[in-house]
Formats: sequence, structure tokens, C-alpha cells
Amino acid sequence: MTTDLIDTLEAIRAGRLTSPQALSAALDAARSPACHDAFLQRFEGSAVQPPEGAADLPLGGLPVSVKDLFDIAGQPTPAGSQVLRDAPPAAQDAPAVARLKAAGGVVVGRTHMTEFAFSGVGTNPHFRVPANPAATDVPRIPGGSSSGAAVSVACGAAFVGLGSDTGGSIRIPAALCGLVGFKNTARLTPTEGALPLSTTLDTVCAITRSVRDAVLAHEVLSGRTVSREARPLPSLRLGVPSTQLLDDLDETVARAFERCLRLLREGGARVEEVPLEALQGLSGLQASGGFAAAESYAWHRELLATQGERYDPRVRLRIERGAGMKAWEYLDLVKARRAWIADMERATGGFDALLSPTVPMVAPPIASLAPADGRDPAADAQRDQAFFRTNALLLRNPSVVNMLDGCAISLPCHVPGELPAGIMVWHGALRDDTVLQIASQLEALLAPLRGH
Amino acid sequence: MTTDLIDTLEAIRAGRLTSPQALSAALDAARSPACHDAFLQRFEGSAVQPPEGAADLPLGGLPVSVKDLFDIAGQPTPAGSQVLRDAPPAAQDAPAVARLKAAGGVVVGRTHMTEFAFSGVGTNPHFRVPANPAATDVPRIPGGSSSGAAVSVACGAAFVGLGSDTGGSIRIPAALCGLVGFKNTARLTPTEGALPLSTTLDTVCAITRSVRDAVLAHEVLSGRTVSREARPLPSLRLGVPSTQLLDDLDETVARAFERCLRLLREGGARVEEVPLEALQGLSGLQASGGFAAAESYAWHRELLATQGERYDPRVRLRIERGAGMKAWEYLDLVKARRAWIADMERATGGFDALLSPTVPMVAPPIASLAPADGRDPAADAQRDQAFFRTNALLLRNPSVVNMLDGCAISLPCHVPGELPAGIMVWHGALRDDTVLQIASQLEALLAPLRGH
Repeated sequence: MTTDLIDTLEAIRAGRLTSPQALSAALDAARSPACHDAFLQRFEGSAVQPPEGAADLPLGGLPVSVKDLFDIAGQPTPAGSQVLRDAPPAAQDAPAVARLKAAGGVVVGRTHMTEFAFSGVGTNPHFRVPANPAATDVPRIPGGSSSGAAVSVACGAAFVGLGSDTGGSIRIPAALCGLVGFKNTARLTPTEGALPLSTTLDTVCAITRSVRDAVLAHEVLSGRTVSREARPLPSLRLGVPSTQLLDDLDETVARAFERCLRLLREGGARVEEVPLEALQGLSGLQASGGFAAAESYAWHRELLATQGERYDPRVRLRIERGAGMKAWEYLDLVKARRAWIADMERATGGFDALLSPTVPMVAPPIASLAPADGRDPAADAQRDQAFFRTNALLLRNPSVVNMLDGCAISLPCHVPGELPAGIMVWHGALRDDTVLQIASQLEALLAPLRGH
Repeated sequence: MTTDLIDTLEAIRAGRLTSPQALSAALDAARSPACHDAFLQRFEGSAVQPPEGAADLPLGGLPVSVKDLFDIAGQPTPAGSQVLRDAPPAAQDAPAVARLKAAGGVVVGRTHMTEFAFSGVGTNPHFRVPANPAATDVPRIPGGSSSGAAVSVACGAAFVGLGSDTGGSIRIPAALCGLVGFKNTARLTPTEGALPLSTTLDTVCAITRSVRDAVLAHEVLSGRTVSREARPLPSLRLGVPSTQLLDDLDETVARAFERCLRLLREGGARVEEVPLEALQGLSGLQASGGFAAAESYAWHRELLATQGERYDPRVRLRIERGAGMKAWEYLDLVKARRAWIADMERATGGFDALLSPTVPMVAPPIASLAPADGRDPAADAQRDQAFFRTNALLLRNPSVVNMLDGCAISLPCHVPGELPAGIMVWHGALRDDTVLQIASQLEALLAPLRGH
């Protein structure tokens, strides 16, 4: 694995490296073929200078990338679309971007994403898919929607990939690319200046190379301090929900997940399977597209009416599911979500955190999921079907946490020779610090096996 | 005017009166013909004992009344309807009721209200309308929807009439009955256990006999302390919005309102007319029923399907306006409201408070607005028309503050010989203390003219 942000900051502070050197290496990486497609726009020259006194700032003048849905002053915010490519430029940086810059982060570019952040696959018919840097056999998907964010961090072009997570868009690409993705409790970070998908579920957060980097990135984005006081493993009670979230695991993921449970148990933690029947209530909340369909349709309605044919058809289809929803159905959904959260809190309150595979699969090949190209309608239809099936599987586990208004971190748990697999440590709202602490403990247990 | 709560507490603390004596006088008043219709249910005997040590509690064991839409443990919560008359009993008191009781309030009964809190008129076809105690010529409406709350306080049966205000339901009856009605910023008081009309706009609050009583009642209901440090009048800048809110004033209201402005100016305050063009944006937010229609429809949908014919037809009509609203329309409304609040905040930010007549009229006769009785279809239609026109006029000014997520107090500003008229001191969210302080100063200026 590439050196993480904390290592690099230490090297700079010890005088073994300078910010400009680190930045220059990142810009070289960004230009490399492996990373090139991660960016929809790369910044160069005077736009990527470390600020005065950068070495004393939390991010030390080091490179960060920004998902294409954030406002950057003076630029349009297309969010991976064609229809907003020539939109009026943003008047100011989104608060999340401003916080990264103020902390000494240098934005090296706008990253690839699925159009308007829909789907966890990471494909976008308007742009070449950035291939998953962890795959060496065939080109594999990076996962999405923060696809370029993950690839930019994996290939060394950025230490922090700013993105957003509405149903898993940070955690899915983190898991598939072998990175760390932390989705904080939504209210802790500002969503202003980020083109919304679901105003109820959107979370602004980031992809990093390690859990400690995730802590630092979160502290910058949230403007708060995370408690580092972890409890000893033998005092922890961890739940492994067996309902739905363990279904259809591929071999690598099942093995990697069991590895984590074993390490935690060996370390003394109580790890208990829990039926968590409340999870069955989730499907009702997600029927007919749920919050994302209704809320994205409200945002896109006028644009769809005039420029619908320029949307990714797979995205348009999902947005338009929100057109027919009635206000009372939406309000019923808000109420049902509240009741479901209360059920889940009752069922999980006795655990310090829950553990689940982030996604049930390793990254599938891009070829099987590529957008329709019109050359062979039967093949297009087949890939569309595979796309929606894969997308549903990728979102299945992470989206639970968005509906819960909770927090979750995905960290890599594969070993050399395996494709990346992620484990998700999660819980309800505002348990962010505990989730980060436990992830940090698990990362340390995994390190020897992972060759760190 | 009847002695207020603070006077009575002082008399008790000075030993001139006991709680049981005051309570007994209130129960007598509640049984009197003038007050009888204010209650849908009166409590007697052991249910109305002052608690142990009541004299040391903020409300001193004195009587309060509770609008029929609040949960009281062991009783159904019909909210003025027939369809919920036999609903399952509430398991516990609504937090607002519990706070009144914990503060030493003794609940003397459930008060009359318009069905499900719809309409500002105060009529309900299922029950006799409690006549406005301030009117001596013909029976006049009390105003609503907290009709019985106002009448119970006006006739001496309670010192605090617990109610709710979604578009003026506290302030309208306060103004028409010559009382004080304070609608705090909604988030400051708990709405749980109150049957909702609009979850976005509902505020739990109370009617009292004086501004200082309103402060005390609010402190009990909100669990916070109101700052009593008023600024000197000459340092105050008060705005009088001239757009819409001064239209169609009847003579008494216009005279009473001018009286207040004159007194404030004589006291040294800067009182400025302000066009407040942002108010014109309001009609768009209220078209097709707005939040109340959508949110009440979501709540009532199943009940309407099975028992719609047992609803007040005037109420049912208004709820059913919400049936067709789309989720995107609702979400657009949420967004438009946020933008409108920002506009209003910009336009009013330089003022310490705004002043408007609470309602543009004195209480009209009940006869002109009585529910359809089927005896003469033409007369029924005419009264229906008069009802909806009057209702719209009554709600016009107060509802601005609910849409603004703001706070407002109505205090009486008529003089002996006039029917009651109210002036509303108001502002945006969380200016509650300032609004209360200014109302208190104005009340003191008015006292000599009002014969106090």
C-alpha cells in the first residue's frame, strides 16, 4: 500500500520530505495512465501550489481530490453529467472544499463519478470508467458513485478523496479498491454546495488509505475532534447481523470477513451473531425508489423535461421513479423511517458496533456491466440487467446505514493475493467515534496478515 | 379583567388565598353557563386536587385547561372529532401536559376545538360553539381552533389554556376574546402527544390573561428561562409591514392598532412602516393547501377512507386538498419555504420586532357562520361561503409567522366599550424573548387606557 497521509505528514515534519515534493509526486501519479481516468478535470501549475505555511496545517499542503459534484469557485458543477457541463460557475467553494483548503489540502482535480451520484457501480456512459487499480487480471469496476475519488487515492494522486455517500457511494469504492471509506453521521458534515441526490440521505465524507487518515479527514470536514480513547477489546460486544447482510457472499469476501471475526475473538472481543429482524422492515422503506427517487426527481424535474435525452438512461430511469410519488406517500415514508430507526436502535443498542461485509462481492469486470452501446440490443439488455442486479447487491449492505441515519466505516480485510474485500463497522447516529476506534483496532489486528 | 396567574400566585404566597380556594372558584366558573361549552369534558372531584406542596411549584396548584387534541393518560384523544371519540386511551400524558402538571398545574378539563384544529373560526358541528365571553350584544365566535382554551381562560375556569397554533389557532381566539396568546418558535416546545395538523407548522403553546402569565406558561412548557431584561423603548426599532397585513381592517381594529403605534412612538420607539414585499411570496407557498393539506392528509388518509362521512364536511374538504399533491411538489414547497424565510429574514433583520393587527376584525356573530344544518340549502351555502372567507381573513396575518418558523404574541389593545382587538408582536425564529419583552412594555403602556 502507498504510504498514508499521517506517515507523509510525519516525514515532512521530520524533514525527510517537503510538501512540494509530495505534491509533485501526486501530480505525476495523476498524469499516469493508471490514474488518468479518475479525473474529469485535473488542475496544474499555479492552481496546485501548497499554501503559505502549509507544513503547519493539518493536511500539510498535501493533495486531495474533489468529486465532481462539489462546488469549486469559478467552475461549473456538472456532477458527472453532460447536461450541466456548461452550467454557470459556482460563486464559492462548497464548505467541505473550503474546509479541506483551509486545513492545507491542495485540490488536484475533480474526480470521475456516476452521473449525479446514482449507482454503486462506478460506470458513466459519458466518460471512460477508471479501472480499479487493485485488479491485475481484467479491467474491473472501481465501484461508485465516488469512483474517481477512490482511484485517485489508490493510485497516489491524492491522500483524501472528497466524495459523498447516499447509499454507499464512499464505502463501496473503498471496499472494491482496498481503501478506507468513512461515512459519518450525516449531520456532522456540511452538505451545502454539493449537488444533492437525496437531501435526507446524503452525507459528505471521504476516502482515505487508512483509518487514522479517515479520522483526520473527518476532523477537518466536520470541524470537530474525534476521541481516540479506544476501549480494550475484551470489553467490546460486537454484533454480526445475520439477516440479509450475510447473503450471497462470494468466497473472497466470506473468507476475509471470517478472518476479521476470528481476529477480534482472539483479541478477546465478544462477537455475537444477531438475527436483527428489524432489517426486514427496510425493504418497505426502499420500495418505489424511496427518498432518493422522490428527492432527486424534485431536483431534476425541470432539467429532465428539457434535456432528459442527454441523461444516462440508467440514471434517468431511477430518477423518474420519483415522478409519481404522492406527498402523503413521502410523508408516510418519513414516518416509517423514524419508526424503523427506533426499532433498529432497540435491537442494536446493546452492541458497541455492528460488523458486516461492506459489499458481498469483489469488483466485477467492467465488460459485464458497461453501458449500452447500441451495437447489439440483446447484449445491451443483458448488461443492463447485470448492471441493476450488481448495483442492488452493492448497495444492499451500505444503504442500511444511510436509512438508519448512522455511521459506518469500510476498511480493507483481504490479504496479499486476494482482490480487495471490505468489512464495515457500523452503528446508529452519532456513534462515529466508537466506530472509528473499533475500526482502528481491527486495522491493527489485520496489519500483520495484510503485510503491513 | 379577571386577576391573572401571577397576581393569584402572589395572593397565595402572601396567605390571602389558598390553592384549593382558587381551584374551587375556577371549578365553579367552569360549571357556569357562560363557560360550560368551553369544555368537551370537565374533570371533578379527586381528579382535580392540587398536588402535595403545590404552593411551592411554579403554577401553584392552580387550574389549567387542555385542548382536546392532547394526550391525557387513560383517555382517548378525539381532537374535537366524532371519529376518534372511542379511540384507544393514551398510555401517557403528552409532554406538554406532563410539564404543566409537574409545575403544579391542575387540569380541569379538555377544551372545545374545531375538529382536528382546522379553521380559525372556532365552530364545530358536533358541539355547541362556546360563545365569546367578551361579547354582550349577540353570541359571537370565540375564534379557533383553540376556542375552548380561550373561553376557559376568559371566564375564569383556567389561568393557562394549553393549545396549539398551526396558522393562528392560539392567537386568533386570544385576539377575539381579549386575551394573550403566545406562539413560540415551534421547536422550543414538545409536540409529541398532540394530534398533528401540520408537522411542519404545529406549535404547542398557550392562552393566558397577561403577558407575564404568557412568559411563565412558556417557561413551563419549554423548560427554559425567558430573559426579562427589556431594552428601553427609545432604543427599539419596530416595523409595521404595510403589504397585505393592514388590508381590510375593521374600524375597531384599525383604531386599536393605531393606538398602540401612537403609544410606542410617544414612549420613544422608532416605529416605521415597511413595505415588506417578501410577503407577496407567501401566497405561492399556501396554494393548494400547502403543508397543512399534505401533512394532514397523510395522517387522516386511512381514517377518511373508512369514516370520512363522520368528519365535519368543512374540515374534510380542506384535508382532501392534500390527496393529490405529489412528493416533488411537497419537496419544492419545503425548498421554497426555506428561500422565503431567508428573504424575510433579510427584510426584517434590522427591526427588533414587527407589529401587525392579529386579525383584521372583531369577533363576528356565530349565526352568520354556523355549520350547514340541511334546512335551507341556499342559506347553508351562503354560510359556508362566509365561513371560508372569514376563516381566510382570520388566518391571513397569524399564518405568516408559522410559515416563517417564527414567534408571535397577540395582546389585547382595545379599550372599555370596544369589542376585543389584538395586536401581534412578531419576528423570525428564536426571537421569542425579545418579542415577549416588547409585548410586556406595550402591555404596560396600554394598561391605563384599558382601565388596569
